[in-house]
Amino acid sequence: MTYCLAIATDDGLVFCSDSRTNAGPDVLSTYSKMHVYELEDRLVVLLSAGSLATTQAVISQIDADLETGQPVSLKSCLKMSEVASYVGKVSRTQQKMVDESTGDIELDVTASFIVGGQLEGGDSDIYLVYPAGNYISTSEATPYLQIGESKYGKPILDRILTPRTSLEDAARCALVSMDSTLRANATVGPPVEVLVYEHDALDADHRIIMTEDDSYLRTLNKAWNDALKDAFTGLPRFHWEERTAPVLTAITDRRKPGAE
Amino acid sequence: MTYCLAIATDDGLVFCSDSRTNAGPDVLSTYSKMHVYELEDRLVVLLSAGSLATTQAVISQIDADLETGQPVSLKSCLKMSEVASYVGKVSRTQQKMVDESTGDIELDVTASFIVGGQLEGGDSDIYLVYPAGNYISTSEATPYLQIGESKYGKPILDRILTPRTSLEDAARCALVSMDSTLRANATVGPPVEVLVYEHDALDADHRIIMTEDDSYLRTLNKAWNDALKDAFTGLPRFHWEERTAPVLTAITDRRKPGAE
Repeated sequence: MTYCLAIATDDGLVFCSDSRTNAGPDVLSTYSKMHVYELEDRLVVLLSAGSLATTQAVISQIDADLETGQPVSLKSCLKMSEVASYVGKVSRTQQKMVDESTGDIELDVTASFIVGGQLEGGDSDIYLVYPAGNYISTSEATPYLQIGESKYGKPILDRILTPRTSLEDAARCALVSMDSTLRANATVGPPVEVLVYEHDALDADHRIIMTEDDSYLRTLNKAWNDALKDAFTGLPRFHWEERTAPVLTAITDRRKPGAE
Repeated sequence: MTYCLAIATDDGLVFCSDSRTNAGPDVLSTYSKMHVYELEDRLVVLLSAGSLATTQAVISQIDADLETGQPVSLKSCLKMSEVASYVGKVSRTQQKMVDESTGDIELDVTASFIVGGQLEGGDSDIYLVYPAGNYISTSEATPYLQIGESKYGKPILDRILTPRTSLEDAARCALVSMDSTLRANATVGPPVEVLVYEHDALDADHRIIMTEDDSYLRTLNKAWNDALKDAFTGLPRFHWEERTAPVLTAITDRRKPGAE
């Protein structure tokens, strides 16, 4: 499995991906799922989920189209939505080829992608490209997209993110969402990659690859866990708890043996 | 779908359940999934998920066994694990009966239960009874059990709960976990029920049924969202953010236009 997400804020984009692939519980491997294209007048980032054979074939085809100067490639697209459409077409073609070449064997050869970035002078946008090749973008109410094992990490995104969230807070939110997923699902694993893209930068300078032992990741996760525990102590009491005492006194009293 | 969970702490038990059932997106109904038996020398709580026809049949059979004074019933069990085993057997029998009576129609008639409570003089325990009738309890590292739509609400449980968590904090954690799930999945819905059971109380006095408009639920959810937003402002900065400035100054500066 996989967990990748991207966030679109007013200031730019955030991409985040895990690096674990698995074919059964004892066939775990590490592959980056973040593919970055820094081209002359554009930055395009692809996050991939699904069959590794398919996603590798898709990336190879995209690379080949660029290298051999095909009329349609990441370079030829005039808008980010065209990039999403192009990736969708390459994905459909490659899925069909893998499907045909594997014959009667029952295999899930589907793949999903998050495609994002900016073409000089255009908007920074992200798209989710479904296995069918069609795609969606974000909205004011839902400024993020997820592929792979998305449920564990969704609530924190829903609670925190708006298009007004600062780029760095959005990146920290992505890392918290990723950490929740890593803890819950053994098929999602480090290294964790984050790319923070400021609108109009047209580069991938703020990209970090964090292993399990990464000091920033550890500090962030500890700080988050501590903050959550603190947050609980301030939540409203049930009616049968000390109703008349001020909240802070109530918290102190509750810790005295025999106070309740 | 459904979301139910129970937590076992050193001080007692917490049960929490939603009340939405669905058979397709436009066949939504409201049914309590929390079934409480306050018997002479014992309290038993059942939370149910799965086929509503099956869970209703199981509860009816449990009621009938009590009413008709059967040799094996909730009253006859000598330990909570026996209660779990009894519920597992009734569940298997009822699933088999529904399966046979529905003939060739392809139906998922399975059901899962969380069974918990205390028999006078015994431990307070919770068990998850699988559709197969077998069951598991909690551990020091995992002091909670979930049935139904469990992924969205799992991370907060993993981050907060230990057997040392106070009963009321555990109940607030269950409500936050439930709220995350309600927001994410349209087939999980209010009213939300919570029962907080203090070890040796042998009653169900601390049970609350909260509708969507419940003032405690609204206050709790707002307090939690606000606390999370605050928590984000204190998280460690990335290396490219103002590294030398103290954190509080950095936060203030970042909000000035042109400061980064």
